[in-house]
Amino acid sequence: MAKKMNAFYAQSGGVTAVINASACGVIETARKHKDKIGKVYAGRNGIIGALTEDLIDTSKESASAIAALRHTPSGAFGSCRYKLKSLEANKAEYERLIEVFKAHNIGYFFYNGGGDSADTCHKVSQLSKKMGYPIQAIHVPKTVDNDLPITDNCPGFGSVAKYIAISTREASFDVASMCATSTKVFVLEVMGRHAGWIAAAGGLASDKDTEIPVVILFPEVAFDRKKFMANVDAKVKQYGYCSVVVSEGVHDADGKFLADQGLKDAFGHAQLGGVAPVVANMIRQDLGYKYHWAVADYLQRAARHIASKSDVEQAYAMGKAAVELAIKGKNAVMPTIVRKSDKPYKWTVGEAPLSKVANVEKMMPKSFISKDGFGITDKCRAYLEPLIQGEDYPPYHKNGMPKYVRMKNVAVAKKLAPFTVK
Amino acid sequence: MAKKMNAFYAQSGGVTAVINASACGVIETARKHKDKIGKVYAGRNGIIGALTEDLIDTSKESASAIAALRHTPSGAFGSCRYKLKSLEANKAEYERLIEVFKAHNIGYFFYNGGGDSADTCHKVSQLSKKMGYPIQAIHVPKTVDNDLPITDNCPGFGSVAKYIAISTREASFDVASMCATSTKVFVLEVMGRHAGWIAAAGGLASDKDTEIPVVILFPEVAFDRKKFMANVDAKVKQYGYCSVVVSEGVHDADGKFLADQGLKDAFGHAQLGGVAPVVANMIRQDLGYKYHWAVADYLQRAARHIASKSDVEQAYAMGKAAVELAIKGKNAVMPTIVRKSDKPYKWTVGEAPLSKVANVEKMMPKSFISKDGFGITDKCRAYLEPLIQGEDYPPYHKNGMPKYVRMKNVAVAKKLAPFTVK
Repeated sequence: MAKKMNAFYAQSGGVTAVINASACGVIETARKHKDKIGKVYAGRNGIIGALTEDLIDTSKESASAIAALRHTPSGAFGSCRYKLKSLEANKAEYERLIEVFKAHNIGYFFYNGGGDSADTCHKVSQLSKKMGYPIQAIHVPKTVDNDLPITDNCPGFGSVAKYIAISTREASFDVASMCATSTKVFVLEVMGRHAGWIAAAGGLASDKDTEIPVVILFPEVAFDRKKFMANVDAKVKQYGYCSVVVSEGVHDADGKFLADQGLKDAFGHAQLGGVAPVVANMIRQDLGYKYHWAVADYLQRAARHIASKSDVEQAYAMGKAAVELAIKGKNAVMPTIVRKSDKPYKWTVGEAPLSKVANVEKMMPKSFISKDGFGITDKCRAYLEPLIQGEDYPPYHKNGMPKYVRMKNVAVAKKLAPFTVK
Repeated sequence: MAKKMNAFYAQSGGVTAVINASACGVIETARKHKDKIGKVYAGRNGIIGALTEDLIDTSKESASAIAALRHTPSGAFGSCRYKLKSLEANKAEYERLIEVFKAHNIGYFFYNGGGDSADTCHKVSQLSKKMGYPIQAIHVPKTVDNDLPITDNCPGFGSVAKYIAISTREASFDVASMCATSTKVFVLEVMGRHAGWIAAAGGLASDKDTEIPVVILFPEVAFDRKKFMANVDAKVKQYGYCSVVVSEGVHDADGKFLADQGLKDAFGHAQLGGVAPVVANMIRQDLGYKYHWAVADYLQRAARHIASKSDVEQAYAMGKAAVELAIKGKNAVMPTIVRKSDKPYKWTVGEAPLSKVANVEKMMPKSFISKDGFGITDKCRAYLEPLIQGEDYPPYHKNGMPKYVRMKNVAVAKKLAPFTVK
């Protein structure tokens, strides 16, 4: 039997409200299999920590600290935006990874991220063959953008969706109260540069129990100012008010982002603004309605206080399954979420080869966007609703603040010469 | 004994996450005293509903619907931004109010709002003397701005404060995860045009358990770009990242709002933007740090999903106390929150004459702002923390959405000729 190997775990790309729940799943499950897996080393600031041999010894963290990761947003070990080039383009980086893995007896590589990370993870899995070092690389899915293929959905998305759906409903109730003499249109800007999954979640603000006039601007639908204004105007005339949920990635037919209005301040300096104020200003110009606008930005993906229970459970399950796949001897795979039924929502854990995950972006199906281009279909609702089901509140301190944990993040002693990441 | 009179209740100005909890307190308490108070009529869209004789018969709402107001954000009967002029300047409006009160046998006037509403309520209370109609006017305090005098704090503020404190902590955890290779500064714009109470709540994101570098821009402190940048830079150098909480009302020494940068789009049209992107752009220009920014806008005052338990209880208590004061025969008063101790937080209900409430704006004491002008003092923390204590979650539907109630809002039959509100 092979000697017991350590594991490496890293968080990659934009963090989420539940990526630490996946870390919790990885570490807790590894700790249950001490006969098979030695220590779990986390990369400080993601894959950069592997390259610079900046490893965190998670065995120094108490069981209760690791358990608290489940209800703590963000990336507890630090994340990074860094994509490995191909083996041919930057062999030195791969050689360095192997050097670090060897020096620390690492045989398992758990990479927690989105599409780019799946690609990196896939490349690392090939080291085994190409460079003769035994490493099992397992990808742990994570992305608020919900754009990974094969898996029914991505951990991280459900909680953003819940936040956006609830925030849109709450703000809509607010506007409805004010619309007789004041604000008539509320505009909320949400994330999603390429795919409109998050914007679609704004459509959940309205349902059969609580009807709300919501107009969605998807990145998948070229912006048509005239059609949009007609839609908003009709809703204001019918309901007295209207909410607009706009994806940051909305663009016109020529591909020009709506957010890019060439704004200049009084000194002629270019200013970067959001798309929400642009849409709000257009509404003022074309319809004259009083508006308010908000930009959710990080608040939406960090909002662990209103995380979806489905999402937290799945994030944890993906971390756990990754370790179980590793123990089974798997390589170059990603655990997936497989939907069994919508109502009641049932799902199981599946598995996908990384070769089919890397570099594939799952867009919103056309059948999820209503014919007029400004709403979601029943099919979309049936898909989205299970993902925001259930509440999973963090514990709170007496002073009213959530108890989010911070790791000690104790460094593993370095054994190698320094390496510079370009 | 005088004949039993009906009551009029109206919501005024910007709504909050808990103004309906006050409505719940008013209506439930009135229903318990049917020997003294007849029906509670709500003004549709606030005082305008009284002027236009557009009254809502709340007796048509079930006990469970009224109870659900306690956990429903916004103004269930509609609010308005409308301030009565003085009796001398617009006698016709006051005569109309009396006409409507007489026609519907209204002897109690409960007005739920901030400083302007307290003034209106005070004027209505004077009708009794000046126009010979018996009306008891009681003001129910409400404002996210927390700027009413005498009362220790205002219902509505605690929940915004909790939302801003938690959101700032969550987003700060996010930035901390990303700062090694990406975003280093997060800017959050919050409400509060004149007083920095809400901005101050951003300071609660950091406490002895969880230290976070937060820089606050108060409307009380003239914006000094150089000092601000030095502060942000020092924090980024020490912690690797920094969060900035900026009040919408921040201005320079000349009183010019920071948000007012004379922005023009590519066509030369003036654009209204927020202050958060302005501050973020300045940070990019002066320090070169990558940033993200968010504008909370309505989300902060509508966020019933994370309301403060203290706040909900106080909002209800103010509504209840208003009715009890009316039953005791009081006029021209407002129930208040009287703090008995900080730790443990203890408070009782007091009473203030409207003559001392109307047209007085309570600003942040100087002793609440740190010497450098960018943070809160321990005294401020001791004041704020009790107000965000406890969670009071709304119930949820199975589909993951909060159960917010909508009233039937059945109109009372009109008895008078129409009246046009100018």
